[in-house]
Amino acid sequence: MRILLTNDDGIYAPGLRALRKELQKIGDVIVVAPATEQSAVGHSITLLTPLLVQEVFDDEQLLGWAVEGRPADCVKLALMELLPEPPDLIVSGLNAGSNAGINVLYSGTVAAAIEGAFFQRTSIAVSLEYTKPKLDFPRAADLARCVIEQILAHEPATGTLFNVNIPSLDKGPIRGIRTAAQNVAPYVEKFDRRVDPRGRVYFWTAPGLVCPDPHPDTDVTALAEGFITVTPLQFNLTHGAELEQMSKWRWQL
Amino acid sequence: MRILLTNDDGIYAPGLRALRKELQKIGDVIVVAPATEQSAVGHSITLLTPLLVQEVFDDEQLLGWAVEGRPADCVKLALMELLPEPPDLIVSGLNAGSNAGINVLYSGTVAAAIEGAFFQRTSIAVSLEYTKPKLDFPRAADLARCVIEQILAHEPATGTLFNVNIPSLDKGPIRGIRTAAQNVAPYVEKFDRRVDPRGRVYFWTAPGLVCPDPHPDTDVTALAEGFITVTPLQFNLTHGAELEQMSKWRWQL
Repeated sequence: MRILLTNDDGIYAPGLRALRKELQKIGDVIVVAPATEQSAVGHSITLLTPLLVQEVFDDEQLLGWAVEGRPADCVKLALMELLPEPPDLIVSGLNAGSNAGINVLYSGTVAAAIEGAFFQRTSIAVSLEYTKPKLDFPRAADLARCVIEQILAHEPATGTLFNVNIPSLDKGPIRGIRTAAQNVAPYVEKFDRRVDPRGRVYFWTAPGLVCPDPHPDTDVTALAEGFITVTPLQFNLTHGAELEQMSKWRWQL
Repeated sequence: MRILLTNDDGIYAPGLRALRKELQKIGDVIVVAPATEQSAVGHSITLLTPLLVQEVFDDEQLLGWAVEGRPADCVKLALMELLPEPPDLIVSGLNAGSNAGINVLYSGTVAAAIEGAFFQRTSIAVSLEYTKPKLDFPRAADLARCVIEQILAHEPATGTLFNVNIPSLDKGPIRGIRTAAQNVAPYVEKFDRRVDPRGRVYFWTAPGLVCPDPHPDTDVTALAEGFITVTPLQFNLTHGAELEQMSKWRWQL
């Protein structure tokens, strides 16, 4: 099995390194990842600046390519220019920080997997809940491989897209794996307002985004309860029920 | 009616200026928009750098705020820090270039509207198909207002989200307004491979993204046929049918 591995934390991130090691147990892994950290870039792509690409080696062996671009750029370039053959599987991660609820839309990690699905490749995003700067990526990567192997054992149709979140490993033992819908309840956010030495106003996005009232049986709640969550995703944003309603509208020009 | 206007082309973009003029006919418009162009940034948000904010005036009157950040940052900041009262409506545009099909996911214009819907505000993204550098924004903005007024006349539930695309005005008369689903058929893209004077490889994303085989009755086909398209959107990416299937899976840890 040929596996393309990417992420949004950058090609030298420890999460990617740990996941690569685990994925090598189930296939040939080639990495195409951003040269630098690209967190919260969502589904950005690079249109107006060139995408510099550099081969990266791990000892003597080709690790893959570092791209001065976004996670979604990496997947596009990998599939269209860099890989000699299309991969059987695209994996994005292992991200330092969960990507559940509406954060799925901000996530560069998930966007890379969605980009893979655009190209009709089976794609899996994997993230680890963040609790402290030093995360146990090797253990999380082992759990990630365990989940990925089970997904593949069900032989999903090509182009199927999954979002996997692993709860913090500091909260106690993992309670199991649960299939869950994406939570869409709002988050509470804060900005920190400051004034610079020149009198200009600026804001910092404060950390600690919380979802005070998540919907039950969603990725956010299952993750909080200590389960690994698996959410199948799609990228058709059409609101079906609303579309049905609107088909009765009479438009005038 | 209080209207928050934003975009991804930047606060000084002619599309925003034209749309503001039209929206002032139906409400009080305040602008919170990126200080500089932010095309194809998708649903990026700014976590690691400060968001500089500057008041911008149009003659003597407050136009709004320029934010050194992404379109989604602008909506967040507007709702949480800058506006004295929440707006009744959020409009994002008028974008120079259509945002239909899978481009919806790359679009900063649409992401700003989705961000508005996260906050349960009725939000409308408006884009004009790009054919040449000089677009007729005043005419397109007049059409956009005409569509927005009809959407509002149907009193959509608060938090409803719409994506409006206006076909190129150079292709002949507009054939009407059509409600359409988002196209999810793949696009064909190309990269242009080059080598810099230092021998480093880089790629340019080539212009002219095409969707060779769009699904019928979608935003992409209706737009190509000369219709203004209106697509109701939602931001729950869960693949319902797949989730149903997966509920039968037995996971092991």
